[in-house]
Amino acid sequence: MNVVEIIAKKRAGEEMTEREVGWFVNGFHEGTVEQYQASAWLMAVCLNGMTARETAWFTGAMTHSGLVADLSDVPGAKVDKHSTGGVGDKISLILAPLVASCGLTVPMMSGRGLGHTGGTLDKLEAIPGFTVGLSMAEFKDALRACGVAIIAPSSEMAPADRKMYALRDVTATVRSIPLQTASIMCKKLAENPDSLVLDVKTGRGAFNPEVSESIELASSMIAAGEADGKPTTAFVTSMEQPIGRAVGNWFEIHETVETLMGHGPADLRALTLVQAGQMILQGGKAGSLAEGVEIAAVQLDNGQALAKFYEMVSQQGGDASVVATDALGNYPKAALSGDLVASTDGVVSKIDAMEIGLVACGLGAGRTRIEDDVDFTAGVWLHKKVGDVVSRGDALCTLYTNR
Amino acid sequence: MNVVEIIAKKRAGEEMTEREVGWFVNGFHEGTVEQYQASAWLMAVCLNGMTARETAWFTGAMTHSGLVADLSDVPGAKVDKHSTGGVGDKISLILAPLVASCGLTVPMMSGRGLGHTGGTLDKLEAIPGFTVGLSMAEFKDALRACGVAIIAPSSEMAPADRKMYALRDVTATVRSIPLQTASIMCKKLAENPDSLVLDVKTGRGAFNPEVSESIELASSMIAAGEADGKPTTAFVTSMEQPIGRAVGNWFEIHETVETLMGHGPADLRALTLVQAGQMILQGGKAGSLAEGVEIAAVQLDNGQALAKFYEMVSQQGGDASVVATDALGNYPKAALSGDLVASTDGVVSKIDAMEIGLVACGLGAGRTRIEDDVDFTAGVWLHKKVGDVVSRGDALCTLYTNR
Repeated sequence: MNVVEIIAKKRAGEEMTEREVGWFVNGFHEGTVEQYQASAWLMAVCLNGMTARETAWFTGAMTHSGLVADLSDVPGAKVDKHSTGGVGDKISLILAPLVASCGLTVPMMSGRGLGHTGGTLDKLEAIPGFTVGLSMAEFKDALRACGVAIIAPSSEMAPADRKMYALRDVTATVRSIPLQTASIMCKKLAENPDSLVLDVKTGRGAFNPEVSESIELASSMIAAGEADGKPTTAFVTSMEQPIGRAVGNWFEIHETVETLMGHGPADLRALTLVQAGQMILQGGKAGSLAEGVEIAAVQLDNGQALAKFYEMVSQQGGDASVVATDALGNYPKAALSGDLVASTDGVVSKIDAMEIGLVACGLGAGRTRIEDDVDFTAGVWLHKKVGDVVSRGDALCTLYTNR
Repeated sequence: MNVVEIIAKKRAGEEMTEREVGWFVNGFHEGTVEQYQASAWLMAVCLNGMTARETAWFTGAMTHSGLVADLSDVPGAKVDKHSTGGVGDKISLILAPLVASCGLTVPMMSGRGLGHTGGTLDKLEAIPGFTVGLSMAEFKDALRACGVAIIAPSSEMAPADRKMYALRDVTATVRSIPLQTASIMCKKLAENPDSLVLDVKTGRGAFNPEVSESIELASSMIAAGEADGKPTTAFVTSMEQPIGRAVGNWFEIHETVETLMGHGPADLRALTLVQAGQMILQGGKAGSLAEGVEIAAVQLDNGQALAKFYEMVSQQGGDASVVATDALGNYPKAALSGDLVASTDGVVSKIDAMEIGLVACGLGAGRTRIEDDVDFTAGVWLHKKVGDVVSRGDALCTLYTNR
């Protein structure tokens, strides 16, 4: 096979064969396909797209560029969930222990925040001692013991994706439905759960702001998951305003515990319950989505989900006393804080999730570069959300920072 | 300025600013824009195109990436001609001395053959001693003394183009009207004649087989030339069958001399005269194209053009005795030759220039890689051309090779 001919094929908008896709991905991973050839191909994919089966082949080749987890010796139905990322999106933190408390196994590998979006791993690390760097053996032990673990994927998983993402980042080839599909799904398929639930965020604070594009991405990811034999479903959910009231690592842990206690914000609770219901359905513990949601609601309200959260925190070395329900107020505070005050009476009609995310990042809660540290205590706490009545002088939100 | 944003702009099909184009080309030339970024940008240009002024800015930036010749101290109107390349295309070899014999100055920088196409420099080097590697000072001396010189461009001219062409070659980004325009025109504009005539080949043996595409390329090159203040015209001419009867380096020199003697093939003579006429018009030595063609015909038939050819050969160190009219048959012969014989009576309806070019290349007359040597004695001599009547047993062509 000839790399220039493969690029030319994609340039002409033709479909590559499964062999060509595999050869290209392997060549890129091993370095026989040069970076400058891969980037030309990536741009051709961005502009000419890929067919559904091409995307599935590509995803498969990326998945098999490294280790694929074998969870066959971990008992229970393994169901995972993945979000495309947003602002104030702490759903996974509540969902994972909630679903595990229903008797399912949740083998979750998650990511870090970048730019305006937060990352599940960063949030968990706000809990002193919590470690996300488990080996595969430790991960499986944790799953056997507790039914849930949230870790960082090992560097042996989907290494071609890491190399390709770094190249996409510097060649304006990040936005592309098939490339996003493969990049997200290869990591999930390497993690190798029995089935998957996806939360595709859409709107101002999402990576894909257009609903039509989000639906396209959801369909593409479902097809790639199903092509690998994994039942896959997706929710396309609004990311116009932040989810819940807390944006920032510790604040989101705080709100997670509140939600697990049964008094979280309505939007966060609703999003969590419906996705939990779907996972419970896919894991065979409910006969319908409605029944799954009902089971999840019971577990959230009876304290079982919160108990599982504490079990997970301890299992991964975290200091559970810090997240005890009566200790949440004792967490260190940022040195500086200030309220944004309403200058007039009215009703909140819009909160720009992207701007809130960028502000939180600027306050120290996020990263602009992958190697930056995050400040767990920085962030934004929203006192008002869309639809809330506001009087002049009310605090709309409070900003926290050490900068 | 930010390279990723510039790539993203081109990816989105937007027009770059003149400053952005200049910054990008300089960055690529100096290595601050990485090869993998340039190739992503190149693919975006291939698929989304460039506006006319973007192409002109790009051409200008490529031109000024290196030395631009200053021919102001060379007397006479400087007119050059460039062909996009074909099979049996020895027009430049006849045209340059012909036009110089009319009192114009022809500062021609030309190229080498690759693949199915021949190169003017390779053909000239079939003449023992002929050197194409003149310094700028030697080039200008030759132009002052003889009115014509055909040389290889110095490595100081348009170096960004050489680097970019090498990258295009390995990233399937060669075919693109704006990129071709810039690559051809930057070298011509760096050579810096007063005006330019272009011969855009179209059909099977041309780089651009489609007439519509060839017209588009011609228009684009004219616009880039005019944007640099150089009157530029273009002919779009057929490259379906080889030009003349000779394909191969020495054979084409042989046919050049025959044509300069006044008995060349009709198609070669006609193409040469019309382009010479246009150059004579642009150089101010004729009031119309028709008058220019007439002047050229006279110079071809009265021996002045042939005399100028010999003068040029001697000026550049070539052994003119080898190309004397009565010495043409003494040139070394290839070890092997064979006729292709007609198996039936009929009329030649088609000769595939691409196939003939590839065959000649395979016989040793051309290169498959830029570093290959060429065999001056190899090639194809066509005994029949389109429209010729053929009897069974007639030789259609003779092939010559040392392989």
